[in-house]
Amino acid sequence: MTGAMDAVILSIGDELLLGQVVNTNAGAIARRLSGAGVDIREVLTVGDDRAEILRGLEEACALAGFVVVTGGLGPTHDDVTKNALSEFFALPLVADPRLRERIAALLASRNLAWGPNAEEQAMIPSGAAILPNRYGTAPGIVIEKAGTTVVALPGVPYEMEQILTDSVVPIVAERIERNGGKVVLHRTLRTTGISESALSALIGGPESLPPEVKLAFLPSLSGVRLRLDAAGESAKAARMLDTAEGLIRQKAGRYLYATGEVELESVVGDLLVASNLTIACAESCTGGAVARRITSVAGSSRYFLGAVVAYDNRLKESLLSVPASTIAVHGAVSRETALAMASGIRKQSGADVGISTTGIAGPSGGTPDKPVGLVWIGYEDAGGALAVRQTYGEGRYRVVERATFSALELVRRKLLRLV
Amino acid sequence: MTGAMDAVILSIGDELLLGQVVNTNAGAIARRLSGAGVDIREVLTVGDDRAEILRGLEEACALAGFVVVTGGLGPTHDDVTKNALSEFFALPLVADPRLRERIAALLASRNLAWGPNAEEQAMIPSGAAILPNRYGTAPGIVIEKAGTTVVALPGVPYEMEQILTDSVVPIVAERIERNGGKVVLHRTLRTTGISESALSALIGGPESLPPEVKLAFLPSLSGVRLRLDAAGESAKAARMLDTAEGLIRQKAGRYLYATGEVELESVVGDLLVASNLTIACAESCTGGAVARRITSVAGSSRYFLGAVVAYDNRLKESLLSVPASTIAVHGAVSRETALAMASGIRKQSGADVGISTTGIAGPSGGTPDKPVGLVWIGYEDAGGALAVRQTYGEGRYRVVERATFSALELVRRKLLRLV
Repeated sequence: MTGAMDAVILSIGDELLLGQVVNTNAGAIARRLSGAGVDIREVLTVGDDRAEILRGLEEACALAGFVVVTGGLGPTHDDVTKNALSEFFALPLVADPRLRERIAALLASRNLAWGPNAEEQAMIPSGAAILPNRYGTAPGIVIEKAGTTVVALPGVPYEMEQILTDSVVPIVAERIERNGGKVVLHRTLRTTGISESALSALIGGPESLPPEVKLAFLPSLSGVRLRLDAAGESAKAARMLDTAEGLIRQKAGRYLYATGEVELESVVGDLLVASNLTIACAESCTGGAVARRITSVAGSSRYFLGAVVAYDNRLKESLLSVPASTIAVHGAVSRETALAMASGIRKQSGADVGISTTGIAGPSGGTPDKPVGLVWIGYEDAGGALAVRQTYGEGRYRVVERATFSALELVRRKLLRLV
Repeated sequence: MTGAMDAVILSIGDELLLGQVVNTNAGAIARRLSGAGVDIREVLTVGDDRAEILRGLEEACALAGFVVVTGGLGPTHDDVTKNALSEFFALPLVADPRLRERIAALLASRNLAWGPNAEEQAMIPSGAAILPNRYGTAPGIVIEKAGTTVVALPGVPYEMEQILTDSVVPIVAERIERNGGKVVLHRTLRTTGISESALSALIGGPESLPPEVKLAFLPSLSGVRLRLDAAGESAKAARMLDTAEGLIRQKAGRYLYATGEVELESVVGDLLVASNLTIACAESCTGGAVARRITSVAGSSRYFLGAVVAYDNRLKESLLSVPASTIAVHGAVSRETALAMASGIRKQSGADVGISTTGIAGPSGGTPDKPVGLVWIGYEDAGGALAVRQTYGEGRYRVVERATFSALELVRRKLLRLV
């Protein structure tokens, strides 16, 4: 409908249908294809059943010229997807000599014997092309027939992602080029520390952006993401997105911490490296979530020294030198305790920056004075200290996630001198 | 096909199609419906577009007699789903007086004014029933026509879950009863510390279980889940699952830590409460992930005292009293350091159980001797100490998740005297 190349994602697996496994593969494929400018029409999930897969293929091929199928290619699934593809396209399964060799080499390198499973893995629908799998025995396969392209990928996420990057994205780029370069482009601007309605008021209505650009708000626990969409010829669509991004930055730039898939913990890490500063945390209600997020970044050992999770108040005293009188007078959830925790972890660790959290994650522990969802976040560096009070409402997971994000955002703002 | 009531889940949202938001709603609905015995035929995701939603409704209603739709019911989405439902069923939107009152009361309680958005929210397809939303202004709605039931729920997860539990599950139960009680039941047995192939060998082939029960293996970073499926009359299907579970427990019971949606950290928490013991962690490579998982359980403050995340070796010495010579002689990633860390956190915190992790999460930091993925896990209680060596291969996230799980599993086994 946009003139861009369209696609359908077909996911196969009973475990997906039953909600036992989150369909992260569909999301990863959707991000990569839409990132390349493809218009995704639908994501369809069906069970591990030949008739259901055939129905899914029929629907997908009727709807779009490019179909990506995942799941059901491994030996544990009895190759049900490969059989269904063979039947759907009336292409008999044949042994592929080069694939046989590849599988034999992979098995030999792992000291595994060739068996009936390997034999099955070496069969592909006659005439299909192979997309090499560097990490496993099930290759990706491509079938082109009557103007439709079906790409089938294994369901193991890291095998799927490798084939997606190395083989599928280049095929898509070439296909878009051949079709005249029409695309739908998307750009995500990540904000935090501001509500959807306040952000919307700040940016203004649709008339404040180029008419060709569509703006969507995506609120989440970590903040509001703004998605800009533009359809058309590739370079022109990109220019329109640039213009729209520039207009939004002028108005809401201070809340914007990254574009695309970049996480706040990476932004904070880069700022710490650039400033040659180290950090350590003192956590109470977040229970290790701040440290866990900081250390999720590869290379964080350059700036992250460590953390004390002081759930028990005695540990706030013994490991963070929070005076017993501070807790007795002001309570564990207070400005004074948050500041003492930030100061304590800085001294204990020798870090340049100390960050702390203390609050009531719930569901129990709240009082009228200090309800569930109240969190104090403390910060100290060589230049001084501050503490901010936040109220997040109910929901243990929500409170911890939001407090963790607020703590990282406070570090970002201090390092950029925004507060 | 199974004789059970079948259903389709239709998810609406551009952000889902683009992979920007994980479709957790579909998973939650799938788990609740399949938990009630419903046979889910497919999950279909389409964009925020009237024509696409109409297409989705057409497909869903052709496939199953029960359809659950989520997304597009809030004011920010311009009620696109409600308009599409109105058009699809040829039921004009009409203002519902009771719904108007509910919305007015909710807005008043939040000091918000009545406006055009509220006016829109009070409209429903003529003849539709309302499923009350306790947390927001968009209610769930039910339309029954020509043997098909469509339930539309708002996309905000906690609003959706409340309506699902309070209204949709009872409707489904009543419907199944009326249809003669035919169901498809599933039961999940959670194992950890054993590979899929070893578990499969232990349990034996399909002939080792009742022929009516289907067994599926679902490997993940946290362990292998076994799913048992049985179709038929409700009580009979449950008995078949009991028999199958009993047979599996006889052979693989020691690896089984829970059934259903229960997480390992809850199992460990319950064991600690039952034994009246407290715990504390000393983490290096897991960076707070063990503490974060333990504290994700509501009420964990009863047994969790705290943690030290000692990323920097100096903190292993200062906060955990690991002798500098231990690190110098054996290295930070060694049995000796893991044991000293577990012992150190026990002393520092006064906890009954000390658990520790030290390893190389990667991607850098590996050596031929100590490659990326090598992790030592230490344990100490009043009865003694031990450390176990694990190798998880590459992938920072994978290594941290698997080490975290192994640490919790070690505690479980020690508390149950399985090691």
